[in-house]
Amino acid sequence: MTKCTLHPLPSYLPSSGSSLKRTQRLAARPNSVTCGVMELQFNVSSARISRLDRSKVHLVYASWPRLAEEGARVAVEIPSKEYTRAVYIGMGGSASAGDIISDWLKSRRGPKLEVEKGTFQHSGMRGALVLACSASGNTSETIEGAKSALQRGATLVSICSGGRLEEFARKNGLYVVKIPRGSAPRYSLPHLLYSALKVLGKAFEINGLEEEVDDSLRALRETRTEIEVSTPIGRNPSKRLAASILNSVPKIYGSTVTRGVAFRFKNALNENAKKHAFADSTPELFHNEIEAWDGDSKGFTPVFLRHSREPHNEGRRIDSMIRMLRASRVKTVEERGSGETPLGELSTLTYLLDFASYYVAIASGSDPYPTPLLDVLKRGAD
Amino acid sequence: MTKCTLHPLPSYLPSSGSSLKRTQRLAARPNSVTCGVMELQFNVSSARISRLDRSKVHLVYASWPRLAEEGARVAVEIPSKEYTRAVYIGMGGSASAGDIISDWLKSRRGPKLEVEKGTFQHSGMRGALVLACSASGNTSETIEGAKSALQRGATLVSICSGGRLEEFARKNGLYVVKIPRGSAPRYSLPHLLYSALKVLGKAFEINGLEEEVDDSLRALRETRTEIEVSTPIGRNPSKRLAASILNSVPKIYGSTVTRGVAFRFKNALNENAKKHAFADSTPELFHNEIEAWDGDSKGFTPVFLRHSREPHNEGRRIDSMIRMLRASRVKTVEERGSGETPLGELSTLTYLLDFASYYVAIASGSDPYPTPLLDVLKRGAD
Repeated sequence: MTKCTLHPLPSYLPSSGSSLKRTQRLAARPNSVTCGVMELQFNVSSARISRLDRSKVHLVYASWPRLAEEGARVAVEIPSKEYTRAVYIGMGGSASAGDIISDWLKSRRGPKLEVEKGTFQHSGMRGALVLACSASGNTSETIEGAKSALQRGATLVSICSGGRLEEFARKNGLYVVKIPRGSAPRYSLPHLLYSALKVLGKAFEINGLEEEVDDSLRALRETRTEIEVSTPIGRNPSKRLAASILNSVPKIYGSTVTRGVAFRFKNALNENAKKHAFADSTPELFHNEIEAWDGDSKGFTPVFLRHSREPHNEGRRIDSMIRMLRASRVKTVEERGSGETPLGELSTLTYLLDFASYYVAIASGSDPYPTPLLDVLKRGAD
Repeated sequence: MTKCTLHPLPSYLPSSGSSLKRTQRLAARPNSVTCGVMELQFNVSSARISRLDRSKVHLVYASWPRLAEEGARVAVEIPSKEYTRAVYIGMGGSASAGDIISDWLKSRRGPKLEVEKGTFQHSGMRGALVLACSASGNTSETIEGAKSALQRGATLVSICSGGRLEEFARKNGLYVVKIPRGSAPRYSLPHLLYSALKVLGKAFEINGLEEEVDDSLRALRETRTEIEVSTPIGRNPSKRLAASILNSVPKIYGSTVTRGVAFRFKNALNENAKKHAFADSTPELFHNEIEAWDGDSKGFTPVFLRHSREPHNEGRRIDSMIRMLRASRVKTVEERGSGETPLGELSTLTYLLDFASYYVAIASGSDPYPTPLLDVLKRGAD
């Protein structure tokens, strides 16, 4: 393998133009011969889709704007109290909604949403609002966490499609936000995300929440036409991203605002495309991860997830890192959402990336729906 | 590339024997011809070490048991109060100490240590003990976090070798635990880990802390003779681990107890060996990451970090995952520490892995000390 040692900071290279909106950046890329070649090499034809996608996952993805609207319209009733803390319990796909909301709230300085995956270890839960989220309603870690939070005096709200979590909540007279059962838990992200936002909006003062939700719903509808299966690769950012990582291992880099989106994309590649992928985020990655690029980096593609609200320092360092990588002939990829608001940007970016993971599955010849290994382990434990 | 599709759970394979202690497991592996071949292929001769390791990093690693003792003996004075919360602020190598302690405390059910990397976003800091740790004393994110915690009413204790963090603390009449300046921040882990434990032991009731510290100091000394450069590969678990991941991309899997150690190993491989590596932990990885192994997995080696106190459910699922991987002819690696106590196991495991990252650096022809890319980005921001 070639060793691509990096040469720090060549000043002659132009900046990565991170301040441009995604739509402007797309317009700047000509729908050229390269795209044609890419389209030929990157086979996601409708014939191939019908053959591989036996559960019609692409239709589920096409319905995401509608699922988001349903989530945003869900009826929510929770005890009106002075909450001092917000905690989100979830695993896998259900954790992603919490991660994304947590980052979004962090970028606007509060309230803090603590996301707990795995063993619940909190004290001081009086005054806490705890959201226990499990799309299936049967995630054992989430149910354990919910029980533990309740015992410690938290106000518990469950978001689920049924299962043992609903049973437990109903038995204890607790609040349940019921979402429809999706084809697989990971595809329920819009329901979870927007209903969790609604719960948080009832419990805490979040300025501008409604405007951001409205903008993101509008932006998701627009994004759908850009990324769905009928849009050719030249105008389809999800297909283009998929083509650019198909034959390499993506290293997905978020910032403080896009950390959760980065981990979601990694997970979507694992589950939909059965592909190894890696996620990390700034500023922490500048303290260790970056140094890996000074060694043998053949076969890896860095994918940077940008956002207009990424902290200024982080943005500046990401730009420097991209320049260093390009100077060493590492092909870098940058993606960003297209909404007018921070939440709109985050939700459309997530949508673009999830659909990209779908295209990677199809192009590499696998059905995106089944997750046999995960199912075996789950069956063993539940 | 070959596609290694996994076949779930072949019942004929023996269990991975996770209940065995590392020393027992080592004894079971014959110092056979394989090791001889491995030794020949895996060049970490003393001539090569003197040529590549210009800063004599191996001597720093050999001194880790002594650094740990110094850390454990450090004088600590903090205000005696009823603390309600413990928060650890740090980045990179300094964050690792917090992660490891946090996992250790979690495995023995408290007190909880919250580890903050990046932007500090806490409210309710009255009653909180905040440890701001930066080996260099100049980590900007940590200094910002320390200021923010102080403003919000926390009791602040800084652990550093000097720098702007010490300056800030002294100016405000705050408590500083001074550690010696190491050759590079990441090699100061033992100092940080044991002095942070000492601070936490002063502030909170932690049963058996002293016994665990004593055991881990003893175990670190024993481990040194097993893993140092003069011990040949047949008897040296660090060299053996290095040889087994040298030509592949390690996917390092921790459990709830070894999560922090897994991320530390990833970081050590990034910084010492300039190598791409992945870290993740159970139970979350069972919800997505595992599915990646159903696709093209050539070139990846899973490394499982075991621990006698890993939650029973997680251990059982890790064993299943290992059986599934082996049945698909994926070479799996398991590592564990050798102490008699949970802390001893964690510290010796970390030591073994850090030394392995050193051997990967030497075997792949790079000087483990310099971190040019990281330095450029740091210079740009501080």
